[in-house]
Amino acid sequence: MKPEEVEKLLSKAKEPGRIAMKRHPFYRGKISITAKAPINTLDDFSVWYTPGVAEPCKAIKDNEERVYEYTNKGNFVAVVSDGTRVLGLGNIGPRAGMPVMEGKAMIFKYLGGVDAFPICLDTKNEDEIITAVKWISPSFGGINLEDIEKPKCYSILERLRNELDIPVWHDDQQGTALVTLAGLLGALKVVGKKIGEVSIAFIGAGAANANNSKYSIKAGADPKKMIMVDSKGILNQHREDVKDDPVKWDMCVNRNAEQREGGIKEALEGVDVCIALSKPGPGTIKKEWVSGMGSDAIVFACANPVPEIWPWEVEEAGAKIISTGRSDFPNQVNNSLGFPAVFRGALDVFSKGISDEMCIAGAMAVADYAERTGLSEKRIIPTMEEGEMYVKEALAVGLKSIEQGLARLKLSEEELREKIEHTITEAQRGVKLLMDARVIREYKE
Amino acid sequence: MKPEEVEKLLSKAKEPGRIAMKRHPFYRGKISITAKAPINTLDDFSVWYTPGVAEPCKAIKDNEERVYEYTNKGNFVAVVSDGTRVLGLGNIGPRAGMPVMEGKAMIFKYLGGVDAFPICLDTKNEDEIITAVKWISPSFGGINLEDIEKPKCYSILERLRNELDIPVWHDDQQGTALVTLAGLLGALKVVGKKIGEVSIAFIGAGAANANNSKYSIKAGADPKKMIMVDSKGILNQHREDVKDDPVKWDMCVNRNAEQREGGIKEALEGVDVCIALSKPGPGTIKKEWVSGMGSDAIVFACANPVPEIWPWEVEEAGAKIISTGRSDFPNQVNNSLGFPAVFRGALDVFSKGISDEMCIAGAMAVADYAERTGLSEKRIIPTMEEGEMYVKEALAVGLKSIEQGLARLKLSEEELREKIEHTITEAQRGVKLLMDARVIREYKE
Repeated sequence: MKPEEVEKLLSKAKEPGRIAMKRHPFYRGKISITAKAPINTLDDFSVWYTPGVAEPCKAIKDNEERVYEYTNKGNFVAVVSDGTRVLGLGNIGPRAGMPVMEGKAMIFKYLGGVDAFPICLDTKNEDEIITAVKWISPSFGGINLEDIEKPKCYSILERLRNELDIPVWHDDQQGTALVTLAGLLGALKVVGKKIGEVSIAFIGAGAANANNSKYSIKAGADPKKMIMVDSKGILNQHREDVKDDPVKWDMCVNRNAEQREGGIKEALEGVDVCIALSKPGPGTIKKEWVSGMGSDAIVFACANPVPEIWPWEVEEAGAKIISTGRSDFPNQVNNSLGFPAVFRGALDVFSKGISDEMCIAGAMAVADYAERTGLSEKRIIPTMEEGEMYVKEALAVGLKSIEQGLARLKLSEEELREKIEHTITEAQRGVKLLMDARVIREYKE
Repeated sequence: MKPEEVEKLLSKAKEPGRIAMKRHPFYRGKISITAKAPINTLDDFSVWYTPGVAEPCKAIKDNEERVYEYTNKGNFVAVVSDGTRVLGLGNIGPRAGMPVMEGKAMIFKYLGGVDAFPICLDTKNEDEIITAVKWISPSFGGINLEDIEKPKCYSILERLRNELDIPVWHDDQQGTALVTLAGLLGALKVVGKKIGEVSIAFIGAGAANANNSKYSIKAGADPKKMIMVDSKGILNQHREDVKDDPVKWDMCVNRNAEQREGGIKEALEGVDVCIALSKPGPGTIKKEWVSGMGSDAIVFACANPVPEIWPWEVEEAGAKIISTGRSDFPNQVNNSLGFPAVFRGALDVFSKGISDEMCIAGAMAVADYAERTGLSEKRIIPTMEEGEMYVKEALAVGLKSIEQGLARLKLSEEELREKIEHTITEAQRGVKLLMDARVIREYKE
């Protein structure tokens, strides 16, 4: 690609930010509250509020699980962040994190029919974040942790998953891993390789790749054939510097059976798959390093906003498949393909949690849907436009919850599918109605 | 009234509860999230979410006040409760409190255009409640404390008002006091008495009457002519038993100049006004005690669900005006006449707080509106149906915030009025659209 074309691409990448700065102050917010039940006359408030409301209150007091029956708790999700690792912006604080968390809530509703609300916390302390989430948990049917820095994000997720009886999810861990796994399964089908047999180099050893590695293993990949690389090089048993980091040390010991040494170049030599979630590029991964990979190589270069290596460089290097985090190239690994459906499925059965198995089931459903509707080198994973995918994915997640005994509500496959479809369809119809009638105003530049 | 008619009335009072138990499980919740900004294609998410959203995030990081410009923080209100004093039900816990808090959020939206969200806390500890609210405060433009038991509700309100830079409101304190004051001002106009000259007996010395007394004084009433009665009798300087309760002891010392003694009967002797917020009746206040009041007596009997004395008994006793908390009698003292408009006014100028003066201004606006549209013995205060009242009330509150230098946004009276009207109108139009299109389904019994 010519330098001026690259220039154009980089400039195009700035366009959403420019538009965002015009539209954000025009709308002053991206989600709002509306009624879920009818208000025909103001007398209805004597049923929805005092005095009538006392009866459902008393019923819940007698049996707390009835809160799922008489309120919207079962569809409320808190999008919780302390603002310490927002997008690629780092520690910008809870107020500056609000536009992201509100945007996430908007996507939750539109793609998943989930009533999510942004909760930006004015503390960065690990124990306090856990305490805060536990205190507010009676209102919510699920918790979506977002943009919390590591290493505390691991233990926050771990402890909340153990200590709460509602789904807790860290999108930067499970969400990214689910969608990446779905993409990997699709890519392997395209090149005709089996997940149990391929070697994988993970470039970047943060929360996302720690979970990518974990989920790949749960889906059948061989940990011995995995090589993890952090900012200082390949993780192996000589890496004394990470001995105090239990997550990384485990990667030193229980991956990389050949105990390979070196940097990204050495990690990529001869491997089938590269999954990079590290430093924004271009140039983090060099073209010639990709040339050193095995035949029919698969490259995920998912740093944002600029991938570790440009897609055309990957092609020129002879790899077969390239996937990025960007919507302007094919094969976008997009978290929005995961969380709305996973929560839809988990919430519709009032699940007590989201197990790893539920996530894997979701990823498999996405991959199955992609295969059924046509895989290719430029389509290893569906896009957000494919509404049916969300239904299949949510259904797989919900059914797995029932199978594992995590579901409070046991529905038949058909009942669950109908519930999922109805909720998502109506969410989108509601937004369209408000737009058509200009309750949501039109913005003219 | 005949016994069978009383029976009918009591049975009618149970009707909303019966309907509530059918409709709550049908709808499973009373509020939901929707988009506030348009989603024309899924590409819009590149503006509302990553990558475009990074720009407003950075702008807020540089200047935290811009969170009001780029997000809906300025219209988000948390309805916070620990479930310790829900309606007349007592300490039923945060989950059983959810139907009330969700209903409150529904009213906030429909009558005030406020995007309120229920936050039911899994702690009853005073310091922890304060900490929890402070931690979640970056997401919110205001805090509505609700149904928190005394005495901690006083200090929680006090501390949060001092320590946060957003409006904090305890509806059981300020809300009830604002609406009661509006009713009192209307009633006094009907009987032709001046607030500075009347004697008032407050029956019940809880959070609500503590504030009723405080607000009446701020509006010109004479504390020396006030008599407070708690469950053990009139508060005076012989009441050693309340010496450790600073709020009540202040009432012993700084009210009741004549140091009257006795119970409710003695408190009511010869006084102009009775404001009861005590034990549900009937029979808490006896007919013959009301007969002992001064001429053109005014009685507020506001216990729920059954007033301290039935309205017809008050009339038979010779009083001029009776007001209750019930919608099936005239002159309902209804908190829903207050909080939606107060928050609308405070939020529309991004006020740093809700001062007592803002509340008094709101009460005066309600009383002025009532006078202008016609006062009578059966109409000392408007009803929820009177939409114009909300606009006047919100406007008075917002203008007072600007006058006191609490407003972040200084609007002209006309700009503020338009903003208020537009927000409330569109909130109601949005709900109607969703009902007409059956996104909010119809319930058929």
